[in-house]
Amino acid sequence: MSRAIGLRLAYEGTRYHGWQVQPGRTTVQGTLAAAIHAVSGETVLPRGSSRTDAGVHALDQIVSFTSSSLLDAATWARALDANLPADVTVVAAAEVDADFDPVAAAVAKTYRYRIHDAPWKPVLDRALVWRWRSRLDTDAMALAALSLLGEHDFTSFEKTPSSRVSKTRTIHRLDVGRRASPAGKADAEVWVEVAGNGFLHNMVRIIVGSLVLVGAGRRPPPWLAEVVAARDRIRAGPTAPPQGLVLLSTQLLPGTPLAAPTVRR
Amino acid sequence: MSRAIGLRLAYEGTRYHGWQVQPGRTTVQGTLAAAIHAVSGETVLPRGSSRTDAGVHALDQIVSFTSSSLLDAATWARALDANLPADVTVVAAAEVDADFDPVAAAVAKTYRYRIHDAPWKPVLDRALVWRWRSRLDTDAMALAALSLLGEHDFTSFEKTPSSRVSKTRTIHRLDVGRRASPAGKADAEVWVEVAGNGFLHNMVRIIVGSLVLVGAGRRPPPWLAEVVAARDRIRAGPTAPPQGLVLLSTQLLPGTPLAAPTVRR
Repeated sequence: MSRAIGLRLAYEGTRYHGWQVQPGRTTVQGTLAAAIHAVSGETVLPRGSSRTDAGVHALDQIVSFTSSSLLDAATWARALDANLPADVTVVAAAEVDADFDPVAAAVAKTYRYRIHDAPWKPVLDRALVWRWRSRLDTDAMALAALSLLGEHDFTSFEKTPSSRVSKTRTIHRLDVGRRASPAGKADAEVWVEVAGNGFLHNMVRIIVGSLVLVGAGRRPPPWLAEVVAARDRIRAGPTAPPQGLVLLSTQLLPGTPLAAPTVRR
Repeated sequence: MSRAIGLRLAYEGTRYHGWQVQPGRTTVQGTLAAAIHAVSGETVLPRGSSRTDAGVHALDQIVSFTSSSLLDAATWARALDANLPADVTVVAAAEVDADFDPVAAAVAKTYRYRIHDAPWKPVLDRALVWRWRSRLDTDAMALAALSLLGEHDFTSFEKTPSSRVSKTRTIHRLDVGRRASPAGKADAEVWVEVAGNGFLHNMVRIIVGSLVLVGAGRRPPPWLAEVVAARDRIRAGPTAPPQGLVLLSTQLLPGTPLAAPTVRR
């Protein structure tokens, strides 16, 4: 009799070659598999809802795996945490249906991208931001961002080559704003937050790289609508570096045991 | 003809043995002296307003040094930043009077202490928080904190032995509250913010260690008033670890060139 365990996982991506297992590389998926093995002796590859890239962080990766052990979900959470390194943690755990699929269950995701655009160096959060050396025009960026809201073919914002059939995704929210750095310096960061029903490979980072061209005055805000219409990766801006990106939250189908924000207490 | 340069300096204290130069140790003061030497060839020991301890961070350490070079303050800021490691940066610079004394000029300071009290591990900010493994009662902590407001003899909250003559300091503000972690998880952190006209050695960390005893239910809120009255270090709580503490801001005498928040732009 085996059971399926679902997790909400958080990690700093700095030293990982992304979520997905690759031969000879340290990955989050492989690190979690090793922790499961340490706990129950089982060899199982956990499934994740999001294939975060190398260097990208996550606060809410949805994961599931099956086990024949008798441990309940809360015990799994504690035991995995004790066997995971300091940069990976289990935020919540619940027993889920045997056919739970993290990819299908994730109906929406929210990402945040942090840009440090003050002239001084980011010191406390330097592993979590993209340093841009001149001040960005966030009004221009916010105006440009309007072109991306709603349902579009996002071919221009996908890493090439791609094997995905449908390039159509819906962006529910795309906010650009100046924020006090969490470290305390007012006004030192630009945050881009984007929520949608799904994202193509590198899509958030290419959106950010394009918005920064607008914020730096190198492209006018209406340019972004032309980029969308072109359906051509080469028309968009560069891919922003990974360290500024964090998968902030994943919204699951209602009724999923992990759906409620039942964090560990 | 020499001039005096004032700086607002930020650093992550993790790998430093505090601000003050010590033989054979890596310190922030020594690191800044090396950067000054790299820029102008001069050997000078910069003065700082706060002697932050090993592992404590600062976003607003006030510094001054004298130089015979002809570089203006803005050029000093850029040149120092280029010669400082990634965990130290110059936030602002201005030419100051030859007799500018960072200690005397600092009329008030604000510190923040971050405690991660959720059951999962802090991953993105793990170098910047104290991990406490059970949920703290912030109402009890805020109630206890009232005993410390205003002018008191803070002998109970100073590291011993001490050579300071006066133990009297004034705390202008002492807030305890639950905050969303900057990393995005709602509700995962307790922040203690304290502003005052000066602080004894380890004073903020001993205050936090004492407040946590109250928040954990090991002492009732009125206990803290008894600790103040006792004027005895042994009556207070333990010294909280350094990594949760950051010197957030330093208020300077009005009229000081560095007093206005003229950050680099």
